[in-house]
Amino acid sequence: MSDHGSGWLAVVGLGPGDPRWLLPEARRTIEAADHLVGYQTYLDMVPVELVAGKERHGSDNRVEIERAGLALQLAAAGERVAVVSSGDPGVFAMAAAVFEAQQDAGAPEAWRSVDITVVPGVTAALAAAARAGAPLGHDFCLVSLSDNLKPWSIIERRVRAAMEADLVLALYNPVSRHRPTQLAAAFDLIRDHRSPATPVVLGRDVGRPGEQVSVIELGALDLSVCDMRTVVIVGSTTTVIVPGAGGASRVYTPRTYPGS
Amino acid sequence: MSDHGSGWLAVVGLGPGDPRWLLPEARRTIEAADHLVGYQTYLDMVPVELVAGKERHGSDNRVEIERAGLALQLAAAGERVAVVSSGDPGVFAMAAAVFEAQQDAGAPEAWRSVDITVVPGVTAALAAAARAGAPLGHDFCLVSLSDNLKPWSIIERRVRAAMEADLVLALYNPVSRHRPTQLAAAFDLIRDHRSPATPVVLGRDVGRPGEQVSVIELGALDLSVCDMRTVVIVGSTTTVIVPGAGGASRVYTPRTYPGS
Repeated sequence: MSDHGSGWLAVVGLGPGDPRWLLPEARRTIEAADHLVGYQTYLDMVPVELVAGKERHGSDNRVEIERAGLALQLAAAGERVAVVSSGDPGVFAMAAAVFEAQQDAGAPEAWRSVDITVVPGVTAALAAAARAGAPLGHDFCLVSLSDNLKPWSIIERRVRAAMEADLVLALYNPVSRHRPTQLAAAFDLIRDHRSPATPVVLGRDVGRPGEQVSVIELGALDLSVCDMRTVVIVGSTTTVIVPGAGGASRVYTPRTYPGS
Repeated sequence: MSDHGSGWLAVVGLGPGDPRWLLPEARRTIEAADHLVGYQTYLDMVPVELVAGKERHGSDNRVEIERAGLALQLAAAGERVAVVSSGDPGVFAMAAAVFEAQQDAGAPEAWRSVDITVVPGVTAALAAAARAGAPLGHDFCLVSLSDNLKPWSIIERRVRAAMEADLVLALYNPVSRHRPTQLAAAFDLIRDHRSPATPVVLGRDVGRPGEQVSVIELGALDLSVCDMRTVVIVGSTTTVIVPGAGGASRVYTPRTYPGS
């Protein structure tokens, strides 16, 4: 245990999981920590050589605020704490949860003095995009389809806005056991604005064992292959599919927009 | 020079510039290359220990297609080529340009057989967000304000869509010598939809020497401090500024949206 007052809290992005996509700063921050806090699945993604000698605090999914509170409590007591998150912790992940827990009206005063640092990472959309080509080469939008913490109406408004403004759209958390219908509802909106030839990228477990990346035209898309480990990228009207030299289709969004 | 047929082309993200934010895969890919192709400023960001023994092909900004063509030509001739780009090469950077050059109707047939791989990186918005807290913790949108390759009308439509859908908005290429007025025009739209208390993050040279990150309310924002090395993040209606333990203000977008 460290001396009271010397504690710190870093929220660290692990990237998709492949150690080749783990930033040196993330590695060093985890090395320097005494405590690793995170969703158990993400704790299990930490390279084994970084885990030795550290106390691990794994928890279930969907208890982000409790997890953030534990991390703040440890850091306020002088411990060195890394909260680990897959991808980039600032994108639909733990960084916002840690700030929320710190600023909560009922939070202990000692939590306020904890300095929170955030170590970025490669978020799922960038990873899937890289594997597929360059679908995010032009303006784009990232929306989580989870309505656990926001009303469906705002999700719908955002998907529609992305379509009307001809943005490429990356969808996180497209489906879960508790939310089987949102993805189909989002695609009803998408099909109102995009032709059947629109490229769609499905990236499942990108940067992890069993990675699957497919490029499909909207008209041929079977949504039943998507699960909570899939990120979905829907092209704009300018996004194109081209034959890749390796056999698989590639997709990119040109830098030039008609009318320029 | 390699044997004809064994060449490859990788478009590699350097991240913002700090070697602690350079992915191991990016480092190894650059190490394995014989040729480094890029905008001279980005070539200069490659860690010096990776440069030795490699042929460097630096070029001016705004000649992306010529640069992409050179890389394809070298790879088609059997060379091992890394095209380097700051940030993530798939986000407003070289990856799309390389696919465009390869697919151009006038491109030599040999270029079609070059397999293009993309190595992702930490894009500027994620880097600035990490430094400022967690402004991208909820749905967001990335738009480049450069109208070199797209009409201003589509930029306006996208900025307005982001505002109307209450998305956090990150603006790339906010201003340049050739485009001094776009940022002010974008903020005229933004001010129509967001209160003066809306948090704005300005990140200049994040992850590079002289890094500056500031958190300002929209009503107090002085746009004249922005230049082409600045990324601008405009909060949604739920984004908040809080006092950071280290003195600087922090900003985050809560995971919860009203009405859920």
